[in-house]
Amino acid sequence: MTGRLYGIGLGPGDPDLMTLKAHRLISQATVIAYPTLAGADSFARSIAASIIPATAREIIMDVPMTVDRAPAQAAYDTGAAEIAEVLDAGEDVICLCEGDPFFYGSFMYVFARLSDRFEVEVVPGVTSVTACAAKAGLPLAARNERLTVLPGPLPEDELRMRIEGAESVAIMKVGRHLSKIRAVIDDLGYSDDAVYVERASLPDEVVCPLSDAPEKAPYFSMILLTKGADPWL
Amino acid sequence: MTGRLYGIGLGPGDPDLMTLKAHRLISQATVIAYPTLAGADSFARSIAASIIPATAREIIMDVPMTVDRAPAQAAYDTGAAEIAEVLDAGEDVICLCEGDPFFYGSFMYVFARLSDRFEVEVVPGVTSVTACAAKAGLPLAARNERLTVLPGPLPEDELRMRIEGAESVAIMKVGRHLSKIRAVIDDLGYSDDAVYVERASLPDEVVCPLSDAPEKAPYFSMILLTKGADPWL
Repeated sequence: MTGRLYGIGLGPGDPDLMTLKAHRLISQATVIAYPTLAGADSFARSIAASIIPATAREIIMDVPMTVDRAPAQAAYDTGAAEIAEVLDAGEDVICLCEGDPFFYGSFMYVFARLSDRFEVEVVPGVTSVTACAAKAGLPLAARNERLTVLPGPLPEDELRMRIEGAESVAIMKVGRHLSKIRAVIDDLGYSDDAVYVERASLPDEVVCPLSDAPEKAPYFSMILLTKGADPWL
Repeated sequence: MTGRLYGIGLGPGDPDLMTLKAHRLISQATVIAYPTLAGADSFARSIAASIIPATAREIIMDVPMTVDRAPAQAAYDTGAAEIAEVLDAGEDVICLCEGDPFFYGSFMYVFARLSDRFEVEVVPGVTSVTACAAKAGLPLAARNERLTVLPGPLPEDELRMRIEGAESVAIMKVGRHLSKIRAVIDDLGYSDDAVYVERASLPDEVVCPLSDAPEKAPYFSMILLTKGADPWL
């Protein structure tokens, strides 16, 4: 019997927004796995830190920050091989993932490498999109309204076209793309409808109108634009 | 001191996918509130049923099924007034909501009526979109991919245009619109990329290729189309 690979969504950051299932699986883990970026601390691990058993073995996939994809791919190849060894030995592996594993989650890269050979269970998590909306007091979509999720790194022209054609919009991974995105939204005349949210649900979260957003945004920041949403029945 | 209104996302249906925060707040509730549709059982209440204190008072907003919006509006008006009375008396009210309160959630209608007068906290929940993706083993979006969420009741022409211009698509509330949506997806040539998911995370869930979907779909059903998603790094 081989082990089972779990991809666990941990939610947006507040450990209290973890699901009961994630909490139980992590508390009982014997092997956990997660990626780190160029040696930095893992955000996913920090969310679960207080419940990871001290005895758990940790498989760390350290992903270098390079423009070339090959070194990152090699890091996931190595990590997946290490995880496969544990699974082959009959033990389960709990892969940690901030937010939701299949929504811009790094678990996808592990899943792609192992799902044809092993049993995989994905435990969905609260995404940053609805966590940001909750904190901003901003209903995202009701009735027949549409919601579009866009990554901030998209080229300016594409962002403009996508925002123009959308109703409610969530722009993820704002980070260093803030000024570009802000210019597009200003230009389209939606500035008054846009809210900036940084590190939603964490103690140092920021929620403010886009016009008051700080000059520098961290990677975990989002802009919500709900031009279409009508929360009245 | 007035009480606080909580809008609690319960996730897609499996009580195990409730957040720790939702679980705690509901377990300690003295007053809970939720809508029902034309006297039918509340799905939200059923998710939380095992942890609702027997002593909790329940405010039920029974929403009639009419084409005219006025009777439904009146039901939310009456419910909101009843909730306001409890809050004014200094007690908290826990409003139950399947999925996430601000993502096609009925809590929005309560929020719109009370958020200017009372302190409101929205507790985000796992949405059916990522729950369906988890069950289908279908990564939704990676890196700079876009995700569009569309309600199934949209007119055929608009569905066609939106699906055509999107990358990954989640079509919610499929229900009686299944054949219309299937025709559009067939016509666009994306049938092989589409998955049908019904009642994700519940014991009677259905996950299958869209071409194998049953003739009749319940309201809580979804079609996922990930023509753009590339889960490989």
